[in-house]
Amino acid sequence: MKSVPGNHFAERLAAYQARVEAALDRWLPPVTEKPEALHEAIRYSVFGGGKRIRPVLVYAGGEAFNVAAAAVDGCACAVEMIHTYSLIHDDLPAMDDDDLRRGRLTCHKAYDEATAILAGDALQALAFQVLAQDPGLTVSAEQRLRMFDILALASGPAGMTGGQAIDLDAEEQTLNLEELQTMHSRKTGALIRASVELGALCSGQVDEQQFHNVSRYADCIGLAFQIHDDVLDIEGDTETLGKPQGSDLERNKATYPNLLGLEGAKQAARDLSEQALEHLAGFDEKADMLRRIAVYIVERNN
Amino acid sequence: MKSVPGNHFAERLAAYQARVEAALDRWLPPVTEKPEALHEAIRYSVFGGGKRIRPVLVYAGGEAFNVAAAAVDGCACAVEMIHTYSLIHDDLPAMDDDDLRRGRLTCHKAYDEATAILAGDALQALAFQVLAQDPGLTVSAEQRLRMFDILALASGPAGMTGGQAIDLDAEEQTLNLEELQTMHSRKTGALIRASVELGALCSGQVDEQQFHNVSRYADCIGLAFQIHDDVLDIEGDTETLGKPQGSDLERNKATYPNLLGLEGAKQAARDLSEQALEHLAGFDEKADMLRRIAVYIVERNN
Repeated sequence: MKSVPGNHFAERLAAYQARVEAALDRWLPPVTEKPEALHEAIRYSVFGGGKRIRPVLVYAGGEAFNVAAAAVDGCACAVEMIHTYSLIHDDLPAMDDDDLRRGRLTCHKAYDEATAILAGDALQALAFQVLAQDPGLTVSAEQRLRMFDILALASGPAGMTGGQAIDLDAEEQTLNLEELQTMHSRKTGALIRASVELGALCSGQVDEQQFHNVSRYADCIGLAFQIHDDVLDIEGDTETLGKPQGSDLERNKATYPNLLGLEGAKQAARDLSEQALEHLAGFDEKADMLRRIAVYIVERNN
Repeated sequence: MKSVPGNHFAERLAAYQARVEAALDRWLPPVTEKPEALHEAIRYSVFGGGKRIRPVLVYAGGEAFNVAAAAVDGCACAVEMIHTYSLIHDDLPAMDDDDLRRGRLTCHKAYDEATAILAGDALQALAFQVLAQDPGLTVSAEQRLRMFDILALASGPAGMTGGQAIDLDAEEQTLNLEELQTMHSRKTGALIRASVELGALCSGQVDEQQFHNVSRYADCIGLAFQIHDDVLDIEGDTETLGKPQGSDLERNKATYPNLLGLEGAKQAARDLSEQALEHLAGFDEKADMLRRIAVYIVERNN
């Protein structure tokens, strides 16, 4: 693996995680206001101990284009809201029917199904509200509209929602490698790409070639992220993952380890991480956070 | 009731209904593309024979400000997508658990629950995508951002989603008149107001006082619409309504007829319709479609 400067990565990751959580707290409706149960359920799910990979990618994308974190907070919140809504809905009985998420009860178990459906719905609307209102974002209205377009496409049927539908359909058939890749590029890849792109666009002046390069970087790490998730599903233990280990295998789902073998899948993830770094070749040290994330993605143990 | 010019209202209503359906057909993903079942479910629900009140209000709001219909199509689609997504989710077993909607199977009955959840999610994202992309909308980027803000607020926890959560909570208590009004102003009123406001904002030049007046008009007809719905629930028959008559009464829900009596509720709806017309006093004949809708809202039989 190529050497990437450390720059106190763990501390910076933790700092961004804390930063986005403080920003989310400001944007989410308070539990003291009606309807209280809905607001509690939203906050229960948003503050459920996620890794905040997507918001961190927004901040790191901003860093690469020399944007102050204060200009990026809103976009970081927006992508995490979309991500959290998707987890709440994916966990529902009619979908993956999971009782646990990150070692805690899922939203519909801690509250009820109706509240969980509405909490997800509300978070999607809030994400767009933040993008519309965020006073910290100083780019032109035209650029903000482009950001809306990116986030809406990544979230909708051409992106995350469509990917989840393909994933559900796939339980009745076996996907080949190309189909698996298409599914993941929509289900998780689209929002990961949007995260990096939104961070970059928080800069008033974005060179289109450089924008293209960070988009490709994001495509590579998005896929690497998913492959590594599949690997962890086999190798990780329940305590670290916060969900029963091997649950994907039990369901006989198409996974990268199933299609490529465990070692083949690990190699594919490492290759994609390397490719991601190559897309950043034209960037200076301001892209080091993005570089370090590309390594972290395939080395993390949860 | 004040006399309002007819201007072939039924024909114009039908023309706008046809117009928004053609526009929706252009924006919705085709059933020939993957994931087919999701796209089918989306189209099944969107083309389910709704009255298209909200899109018609967008067009009528545009008319009042002299906007060509082609500039309004996108916003008309966006509000109908948000409305349809809310119906799909409201019908789910965990929510109102309805098998029929407008005389046809609800989305989760015609498909399955997972697909219905995703179809709703996808429609919400599509609504924002249309607002971001619509080439017919010729206003400034700043104004388009204001429209995003209006639609996101109307859809989220401060609007429709929050209203639905209050409605669900209300099944365990009895709302008084003020609480019932708050619930409806969020659950259905917010999107109705947004519809008229978006139509008005499709004009490049909107006088803020006039904008304020159509907003208040919309608040009045939104509430009148809901009161008349409660009245129809008692007076209408199942065939006309497409749902079992009296279903709200059976569930012992707070309704306007329960709180005001049937005649009191009818009078309240007529009064609100009159107030709506008064808010349009400063408008010329271009607001006649809005005027006629204010009458239609409380005269319709389904």
